[in-house]
Amino acid sequence: MATADTTADTTAAEVNNPIRNGVDTAALFATLDAVKQAPKAAGFQFRAHNQWISGTHNRSTIAGFFGVGEERTHERTFVFDADHPAVLVGQDHGPTPVEFLLHALAACLTAGLANIAAARRVRLTEVRSTISGDIDLNGILGLNPEVRNGYERITVRFTIKGDAPADKLRALVEQSRARSAVYDVITGQVPVTIEVDTP
Amino acid sequence: MATADTTADTTAAEVNNPIRNGVDTAALFATLDAVKQAPKAAGFQFRAHNQWISGTHNRSTIAGFFGVGEERTHERTFVFDADHPAVLVGQDHGPTPVEFLLHALAACLTAGLANIAAARRVRLTEVRSTISGDIDLNGILGLNPEVRNGYERITVRFTIKGDAPADKLRALVEQSRARSAVYDVITGQVPVTIEVDTP
Repeated sequence: MATADTTADTTAAEVNNPIRNGVDTAALFATLDAVKQAPKAAGFQFRAHNQWISGTHNRSTIAGFFGVGEERTHERTFVFDADHPAVLVGQDHGPTPVEFLLHALAACLTAGLANIAAARRVRLTEVRSTISGDIDLNGILGLNPEVRNGYERITVRFTIKGDAPADKLRALVEQSRARSAVYDVITGQVPVTIEVDTP
Repeated sequence: MATADTTADTTAAEVNNPIRNGVDTAALFATLDAVKQAPKAAGFQFRAHNQWISGTHNRSTIAGFFGVGEERTHERTFVFDADHPAVLVGQDHGPTPVEFLLHALAACLTAGLANIAAARRVRLTEVRSTISGDIDLNGILGLNPEVRNGYERITVRFTIKGDAPADKLRALVEQSRARSAVYDVITGQVPVTIEVDTP
């Protein structure tokens, strides 16, 4: 997500030419300064609303969120379908839920990378990644109690080009990993509460 | 995901009228039986390809996967943009990566619920959920080392209607949670390997 490198400092050149990699670095540093002054502004709540359609097909809408002290909405409402492919007894109206996890992780690492590169004055020309997750469905099918339900492992392979030596480009990825919200959720543990209303 | 209740058994009526909640229960039980006979068929690999566009804006495509012993493709290629909203120094071309996590969890629990309800002969008429995740961005901004990068907590609130008593409807959710791939990834820990190529 909004990963920044707080060790970089703003210069006059930065203020005069603040856009790098499409990142408004002046706005990025201003945001960091604002949160330093008012840490509670960084308390966010994100949300999705999901509706079952039929079988394994369901649809989420994402619009409102809370942040910087008030309710906000995205510029438009985003709608995503999820389903299973035929081989998993679905109708393939959308990716599987676990594929959206892979998208989330690749997107988070990449967004952070662009911010960190901008803060470190590295111009990126290309960032691509392939992310794969291995899963043994004997877990969720209930056929083998020794197999977990989720991914056994996830691998991300980045290809990165920019105006910096290879070790500096690699360090961008490492810093993005170290400050990635989705990486933390997937490699760490988040408490989930489920409530059910049956009107 | 493809959560099934293996304690339910197939009957002649099931074979004659196998569709419930849009779930082809005959196909579901046939799949379970096939995997029981050949457990290696349940080894799947899902993938996404991500390309950086500008700033925090990037795009994933999801098309191919491996399962039941061979390479497969979805019926179409799915494309998803992710970005940050303006308040997080982005241009709001898509939801944030952490919002896709919420969609993945709600979708996984809901797909499982529909399968389990079908296996238990419960007809669902409505399943809705609101999922929210609380996150303190002091973590990813690097401003407070005691704050984690990811969600502090996630809450899912289901509203479920169907032709079963409330306790039976609640039990469907509990079984779906117990067999959810995404719930396991978020509440557990998955090893993630990141490789970087700098051509």
